[in-house]
Amino acid sequence: MSLCLSDIARAIDATLSSEVSGVEIERVARLSQAGQGDISFLASAHYQRDLSRTRASAVILNAEHAAQCPVPSLVVTNPYLAYAKVARLLHPVPVLEPGIHPSAVVDPTATIDPNACIQAQVVIGKNVRVSSGVTLGPGCSIGDDCEIGADSRLLAKVVLGHGVRLGARNLIQPGAVIGSDGFGFVNGDGRWLRIPQVGSVSIGDDCEIGANTTIDRGALEDTVIEDGVIIDNQVHIAHNVHIGAHTAIAGCVGIAGSAHIGRHCAIGGGAGILGHLQIVDGVTITAMTLVTRTITEKGVYSSGVPHAPARLWNKQLASLRRLVKR
Amino acid sequence: MSLCLSDIARAIDATLSSEVSGVEIERVARLSQAGQGDISFLASAHYQRDLSRTRASAVILNAEHAAQCPVPSLVVTNPYLAYAKVARLLHPVPVLEPGIHPSAVVDPTATIDPNACIQAQVVIGKNVRVSSGVTLGPGCSIGDDCEIGADSRLLAKVVLGHGVRLGARNLIQPGAVIGSDGFGFVNGDGRWLRIPQVGSVSIGDDCEIGANTTIDRGALEDTVIEDGVIIDNQVHIAHNVHIGAHTAIAGCVGIAGSAHIGRHCAIGGGAGILGHLQIVDGVTITAMTLVTRTITEKGVYSSGVPHAPARLWNKQLASLRRLVKR
Amino acid sequence: MSLCLSDIARAIDATLSSEVSGVEIERVARLSQAGQGDISFLASAHYQRDLSRTRASAVILNAEHAAQCPVPSLVVTNPYLAYAKVARLLHPVPVLEPGIHPSAVVDPTATIDPNACIQAQVVIGKNVRVSSGVTLGPGCSIGDDCEIGADSRLLAKVVLGHGVRLGARNLIQPGAVIGSDGFGFVNGDGRWLRIPQVGSVSIGDDCEIGANTTIDRGALEDTVIEDGVIIDNQVHIAHNVHIGAHTAIAGCVGIAGSAHIGRHCAIGGGAGILGHLQIVDGVTITAMTLVTRTITEKGVYSSGVPHAPARLWNKQLASLRRLVKR
Repeated sequence: MSLCLSDIARAIDATLSSEVSGVEIERVARLSQAGQGDISFLASAHYQRDLSRTRASAVILNAEHAAQCPVPSLVVTNPYLAYAKVARLLHPVPVLEPGIHPSAVVDPTATIDPNACIQAQVVIGKNVRVSSGVTLGPGCSIGDDCEIGADSRLLAKVVLGHGVRLGARNLIQPGAVIGSDGFGFVNGDGRWLRIPQVGSVSIGDDCEIGANTTIDRGALEDTVIEDGVIIDNQVHIAHNVHIGAHTAIAGCVGIAGSAHIGRHCAIGGGAGILGHLQIVDGVTITAMTLVTRTITEKGVYSSGVPHAPARLWNKQLASLRRLVKR
Repeated sequence: MSLCLSDIARAIDATLSSEVSGVEIERVARLSQAGQGDISFLASAHYQRDLSRTRASAVILNAEHAAQCPVPSLVVTNPYLAYAKVARLLHPVPVLEPGIHPSAVVDPTATIDPNACIQAQVVIGKNVRVSSGVTLGPGCSIGDDCEIGADSRLLAKVVLGHGVRLGARNLIQPGAVIGSDGFGFVNGDGRWLRIPQVGSVSIGDDCEIGANTTIDRGALEDTVIEDGVIIDNQVHIAHNVHIGAHTAIAGCVGIAGSAHIGRHCAIGGGAGILGHLQIVDGVTITAMTLVTRTITEKGVYSSGVPHAPARLWNKQLASLRRLVKR
Repeated sequence: MSLCLSDIARAIDATLSSEVSGVEIERVARLSQAGQGDISFLASAHYQRDLSRTRASAVILNAEHAAQCPVPSLVVTNPYLAYAKVARLLHPVPVLEPGIHPSAVVDPTATIDPNACIQAQVVIGKNVRVSSGVTLGPGCSIGDDCEIGADSRLLAKVVLGHGVRLGARNLIQPGAVIGSDGFGFVNGDGRWLRIPQVGSVSIGDDCEIGANTTIDRGALEDTVIEDGVIIDNQVHIAHNVHIGAHTAIAGCVGIAGSAHIGRHCAIGGGAGILGHLQIVDGVTITAMTLVTRTITEKGVYSSGVPHAPARLWNKQLASLRRLVKR
């Protein structure tokens, strides 16, 4: 696959630095690695040094840096966004042959759109509805009564528990589990009694769920992920959590039951969010922070501790302990 | 499925607030959402406001709140426990057709009880013994020499390594891995040499293991999970850990090798427990705490830091650093 | 399987304490549990008390403790390393019948060495190359264009995304996902736009990847794991991370994008490492530490906080807050 540079310029509304013709672009690459047929980008002044030496066939950058560019450039206001768009043109999602692989096991009551692609070893339960353009990767397991919206892609070995609803254009990475039972128990006489989790999980459109991430079904109502939410790998989302649209959640985050997170939030890696609290829209939580109370104001919140040499850190801890003794 | 309210009252030993007849209950629901055919509960004064406005067909509550209830009520001493019992009556575990799905691959030396249900794409190794009432969900992989006790349910894509022993009535959520090799290596001349992990994993009765949780096999003896232990999602349990009966472990916890945790403990989400230490019975560890030494007294232990506005938190960290310089 | 004690002594270059003949060893066991046919070891003075009472058929130890040993001993300089070698002799990796299980789905363009063992329900994509001695466990899913080097073993339900390259003698535990998409998005007008991840993952020789661990593919170039790296369970490695040879990473660690970690490092459980930073060779990071900046000097670094009784910890936190107010 290759695209003509002037077509790329037009597609991303960029100004071509000079009249060029016949420049064919095949791949994206970083400035320092790019060669013939590659398009690169300068999104941070940090990489400015690489610009003057690049051998890319073209570079996406903003007007400020255009003069220093030794090769044809595409001038835009947001080079990183423009680069993402070009990368999507050059590396589109592979189109798979629709149909149901003979090794898949599909319940006769399921409705599979003829334009869906059901790959090897998939298991599909009763009354499942799979829309057009959907891909279910090798070994996916889809519980009874699930609905999977148009053009959603589930990569290998994704598990959906029963009754999970996915909107359109979602991308679910391998090993994710959506709709496992919530961790709901009551203690009677020292023993844990499981409480049936009768809700399910409802996911909007254009979401991404990371590899081996788990999202539990609700206890009474559904766990809800709104449109455009992006979730990284190894994240744990407990029952009845609600995540507002366009929020981003980095790897290894754990969110306890019934936490309600606003729209356009950003949750840093390894953060923990306790249950039954609210976080308003536009909040940023930095890495490894423990959120213990409701957050009512937009802003950045932290409790992660940056590393230090162990000897120094141990002294700091000792000082902290002495504060109390005094 | 529906149950008569007076039958429910009898099943949970509750006092019906008034003579009612012909009230049929189909579902559980929260006070504010409940309608005709729903039973709800009041377990916390926090939701008292919802009680006066509820349209549930009945409410489970304690004597103190009975007078304020606008609909028939079931008076008990522990409403949440009673609600759990009612939910289990109304939403029983679905009974699956016993038998072995034709797509399953079962070694001829395995013994599968005729009352077990082996679903699609399951793989069962040599000399495995599966008891009556067991369900193995789609895509489970059971290693050689495993034993699975009566009425245990493994949901989709659970992996058991060889020689794992599960007792009765366990529930294993999708993607859990039990019996992976422990992380046992010795360093010789700067290179890591794997030490064979010749133990396995032994799990008692009535345990729950969460989605994508991993439990490693022992180095020499078994890793042990006693009866009634409940473990949430994304938990990591290393080789030769021992977890006492009826302990609860929340999501994202990591427990290092040979840690010995007592009975009736509660480990908060994201906590880390170092290896080769003991924790006595009845200990509570709060969220994101790092347990570094043996705990010999019952009680609550913490080291998690609650979030603060990032600016303020950075000042606190700077103050802490200054303590050492002084 | 059993081995003659004198053959074991020869294999590990040990001095036999006394002339023995006809002692057959079948298993490894710890000092306090060992009996007839077992070999044990003393690697730490901590277990010295068990030595005098052991009923093992032989014990591996260093010269200092030989006199106290009531049974035949093998004297070496590093007993733990010697024990590991003996355990590997007594408990070798089981040899599996080569061949492709009839339930596996293998693309006709894939090249499978006749000495590889492809187990039940495996799915193999286009142009995959599988070398001699490789085992792919039940339910593995191998994406297009992957290469798997000689004698590598993938246990049950491992997923490789397309284009992943594994060297020789790797061991991948169940449920690991290698080559999922990196978490690369750009925000345009409040919405997240996915950036194609056109790199893959390259793994050297003699690595170990833990159960349910995830390693993302690179954005432009590959994510790289060098030779001899050992990674425990539930670890998250983001796109374009580079991990130097013979580094060890404990469970539940999260490493953000483009972090570059040196050789012979040790990363403690639950640690978090931010993106776009460097860690030099030989660094140790202790459990639950947050690495926020480049580390340029060998040594031990920490920010994990040891537990305390909750009451005391809350007082310490209050004191810390008061420092800022002053």
